[in-house]
Order: sequence, then C-alpha cells, then structure tokens
Amino acid sequence: MSQESFESITIVGDGGMGSILSMLLCDKGLATRMWGYDPAQLAEIARRGENFRFLPGYKLPSNLVFEPRDSEAMRGAELIVCAVPCQYMRNVWTRLKPHVPPGVPILSVTKGIENGTLLRPTRILADVLGPAAILATLSGPTIADELARRLPATACVAARDEGVARRIQRTFTCPCLRVYTNNDVDGVELAGAMKNVIAIAAGIVDGVGAGDNAKAALLARGLAEITRLGTTLGASEQTFAGLTGLGDLVTTCISPRGRNRSFGERIGKGQSPQQAQQATECVIEGVATCQSVVALAAQHRVEMPITQAVYEVVFENKPVRKAMEELMARRLKAE
Amino acid sequence: MSQESFESITIVGDGGMGSILSMLLCDKGLATRMWGYDPAQLAEIARRGENFRFLPGYKLPSNLVFEPRDSEAMRGAELIVCAVPCQYMRNVWTRLKPHVPPGVPILSVTKGIENGTLLRPTRILADVLGPAAILATLSGPTIADELARRLPATACVAARDEGVARRIQRTFTCPCLRVYTNNDVDGVELAGAMKNVIAIAAGIVDGVGAGDNAKAALLARGLAEITRLGTTLGASEQTFAGLTGLGDLVTTCISPRGRNRSFGERIGKGQSPQQAQQATECVIEGVATCQSVVALAAQHRVEMPITQAVYEVVFENKPVRKAMEELMARRLKAE
Repeated sequence: MSQESFESITIVGDGGMGSILSMLLCDKGLATRMWGYDPAQLAEIARRGENFRFLPGYKLPSNLVFEPRDSEAMRGAELIVCAVPCQYMRNVWTRLKPHVPPGVPILSVTKGIENGTLLRPTRILADVLGPAAILATLSGPTIADELARRLPATACVAARDEGVARRIQRTFTCPCLRVYTNNDVDGVELAGAMKNVIAIAAGIVDGVGAGDNAKAALLARGLAEITRLGTTLGASEQTFAGLTGLGDLVTTCISPRGRNRSFGERIGKGQSPQQAQQATECVIEGVATCQSVVALAAQHRVEMPITQAVYEVVFENKPVRKAMEELMARRLKAE
Repeated sequence: MSQESFESITIVGDGGMGSILSMLLCDKGLATRMWGYDPAQLAEIARRGENFRFLPGYKLPSNLVFEPRDSEAMRGAELIVCAVPCQYMRNVWTRLKPHVPPGVPILSVTKGIENGTLLRPTRILADVLGPAAILATLSGPTIADELARRLPATACVAARDEGVARRIQRTFTCPCLRVYTNNDVDGVELAGAMKNVIAIAAGIVDGVGAGDNAKAALLARGLAEITRLGTTLGASEQTFAGLTGLGDLVTTCISPRGRNRSFGERIGKGQSPQQAQQATECVIEGVATCQSVVALAAQHRVEMPITQAVYEVVFENKPVRKAMEELMARRLKAE
C-alpha cells in the first residue's frame, strides 16, 4: 500500500473529537464527511456551522459535508473514522455494518473499554464487523479545544498493518498535529482508556485542594497501576511511558477543560457523582471505563488502588476524604 | 542499625528546602539545628523567625536552633542534611569537612549535577569527604510552599545502606509527608537533577502559550530523553517512571511556583535568559544542570533534543521560536 494520504474520509460521530478532526482534514483540502446518529442534531450542527453542544465557539469548515444517510455516508470513503463514545459503539456499528465498504480501513479515536464484554474499541469493531475489518487506533494528548485553536499537538497511530498506519499518519499530519506510528494497538487503546480513570482521581485531588505535590504523586502511582494492568494484558510498557500513556495522562490531568478531570473536581468540591455528571452533557468516558477496569483488574488479579478508590467514590458513594485517607495510609514500604 | 528515627538533625543550608525540612522535623519534636553559610543571613532569619528570602510568609518553628558555628553545628548530630545548591556544595563541604563527625550519615536533598566534574550530589560529598562517608539522598515531588502549608506529599530516600534509608524514612515520615525507600541512588539523583532542565522547557511552552497538549508531549519526550541518559549512566528505568522521576517532573512542570518552570516561562514571554535570572534571587538549578547534562550526553552519545534546545536558548541566545520549530520539525517517524 502506498504511503499517500487517504483522500476521502468519513467521520462517524458528531462529538467534539469528530468535529476537531473534520476541521484538520478540511484544512488540508481532503474530502470529509461527518455522519451523526441523530439526523436532527446533525442538521442543526450543519445549519449553525458549529458544534454547539460539544465544541462551541469554533466554526466548522465550509467544505465539510454533513451526511445523515448511512449508505451515503459510507459510499466511496477511503478511510472511516470512529469517533463515538465507547459504550455506544456496538449499537452504532451494528447499524452501519451493512453499509461499510469491504477493505476500507476504520480508524478508532474512541477511548474506553466496553462494559460487560471488557473489549477495547478496535476489538468491539472486530466483534461487530468481523475478522476481515482493517483496524487502527489514533490517540494522544489532544484536548479538543486546543486543536481547534490550531495549537501544536502530537498523537500516535497504531495498526496491525504498518502500511495503513503510515497512510493514516500522512492523512492527519498537519502544521498543528504531528503523528507518530506505533505498533502496539493494545497499549495505545488501553492507555488511552485507563488514563481517564486516573484523571477523575486527579480532579478529585484538585477539588479538595490537596496541591500539586499530591497530584504529581497520584499521576506517578496512577501510571504505574495502569501500566501494570496493561502489560498483563499484553501491551508494551514503553507505550505507557510514551505519548499515548504518560503524555495523554498529563494533558487529561492538567488541562482545565479535561472532562474527566473536571468531573472529579466537582466531586472533590462536594458534589455527588450524580450531580457531577448532570453538570455536563458530555460523556465522562472514565466513569464507564472505571467499571470495566475494576472488572479486568479482578480477573487478572492486578492491584489498582487508585482505580479501586475512584470506583468506590463514584459507584459506592464512599466519601472522598475516606478514600483519600485509605490511599495515603497504606503501609510504609519501598517504592 | 535500628529502624528508629534519628533524634538530632543538623540541616546544612538556609534555603527553601532546608527551611521546610526544619519545620517538618520540629513538628515531630526532633532536635533540629540549621546552619547557614553566611552568619549574618542566618542571624536575620533567626531574628525574623521566617526565611524572608526563600520561603517568605511561613513562620519557622520556635524550637529550631540556628547555629552559624561550623563545629557546633556538627557536634552531636545523628544525621546531617545537605540542602545547599549543587554548585556551592564543594565549597561548603570543604569548609565543614574538619567538623563532620565520622560515621554520621549525610542526607543530600540537593538536585543538580556539578559543572566540570559532572558529579551528582552524593558523589560530590564522597569526593570531598572521602569514601567512608555514609550517604543518602531524598527526592520527590515536594514543592516547598505546599509542604509549608502541610499539604500531603511523597518522597523517596535512597542509600547504599538499606538500614540508613529506613531510619531516614522514619525520621521524615509525618502526616503530610510519606517517604518510600528506593535502592537506586544513581537514578534518584539523576532524575531529580535532569527534570529541572525539562521544567525550563515546559515553562517556555507555557510562556509562549503553546497549550497543554504541547506541554504534555514535551513531558513525555523529556522523560524519555532523561531516562535514556540515566539508564546509560547505570540508573534503573523504573526510578524514572516513579515518584522521583515522573512524579517530580510533573510537579515541577505544573506548579505555578516551580522556579525552573517560572524561569522558562519568563523566557517564553520574551525576556532574555539574563533578565529571567535577574527576576529572582533563587538559584535556578536547571541552568547549571543543563550545562552538565549536555556534557554528559555528548560524552555518552545520547540524543537529548529537548535538553539541547534549552541549552541553545539559555546559553547561546537562540530565539525560542526557532528552537521550538526545530523540535517540532523533526522527521515523521515511529514513536
């Protein structure tokens, strides 16, 4: 396969990440279509020329095509991007399956782990679309509104087929986004999913005002525990130390706009998990992911005290102070 | 050696870190003395009961003893703490050497690498005091003013003698500081020193307003390059992924009060390196460390593009924009 850019791309999903990618692709003059699950919402986004719900304040490109029809959205696409929340993926792709052209690569930018099946995004796609699907994943420290302002960012693309990864690299690389390739699909997806749970914990630390020393320790310990589970599941340790692990974890935990961090911050300031969720229309990926990670950790007997603490705070109404004291009170020992 | 706390501690150095440690030790009721190079400055700190230059706004404990006399400061100490800037260490310890009681452990909390010799702190101590010196190092994400507010933090102590490390762990552990042991003295010192160079770069990114995506990528790439040199010099990769590596790097790069980050931020906003240094009385450890790291990297042929860029900006007046463009413009490749 040549290393040229894909020229015709369909983005499945009309959320923040789908919108930002459409901007970058249209900037490059690539033929880009956006499909959304709800035709009425997609029409309203098209009418306003702005993703008023998930990326307000930024104009969508005039050359972006909005296509609500399943078959028309897929027809002729050289690359299909999956940018829907993880827990909605199975439903969306079951609906789109009859229209997906065979042999066309699908790039997931979704970050999560499906509840119940405990599958990560490209595994969900393979499960729904069958083993012949050509799959890739793109991830990295890419807070959407910074990309919308064309501030510089980096990301990694991972695929089993290196030629596909390199074409995706060419397709998305632009003056504000530098894309690297990586062959560890497991690691890229697992790191991207699990860091959202640690970001909820980091937000809680912010919310209670525990300070940057505590938050930095939490990040180091958090990265250690998600690396532990990741490598147990076959991922490479290096991926967790890289852009899609450490890098993405850092942005998600420090950006004032990170959804998962902000959700945790509201809890740290005294809101209940229910109130903290209701304060935003956005899907807080880390919440459902936390359930899946706790289940995976139990299955594989990996100790994940921070993830466990987030689970108890979010799903079992454990008071934040108690969860933090328990984390701090573990016995003195070697690092 | 028993695992009991040291009961009588002398802190060599009247800077921010020496002051904060004296507070924590006095909180625990341990007999604590502070020695300073300049008797007049030490007397003024004692008179005001506050380290007006390096930790203003926080009262020093009333049971802290200020001792400007070299022999009296050392006499009867069970543990001596070295809390002077790296480039001043040789001078200070050459002066104190005749008074250091044999067999008393010296704990370095200094973060840096000596120019010229390219030695890290405990190696400088061994060089000055001789091979019989019992040495240890303490490091971690411990921005001083958060500790002064008794916000929770973590640190690692590393020593060749594990019993010494455990006694230091007991000595410094308190409700707001959790101390872990680690046997990688090289790694703890190298990580603590080199992260200050990356923090200057992170500050530059803040100063030019490049955003959190770029900053997170810089942290991930920065940790990778300091890990590369560290492991080449015999340190453990795990140390760089832990509290004294990643953890300390994160605090230093995100805390608004980090000296090295703030120095970089002033440069990013357009000040010359000279102006950025003159804006503070504090020693910017990362500046001298940067020189040493560039020399070590050349000696060991390790590629360190971020450290090199900081060097060129700070010592060769390379324009920030040019340095950043060169970092961004490296060829597309695998991560």
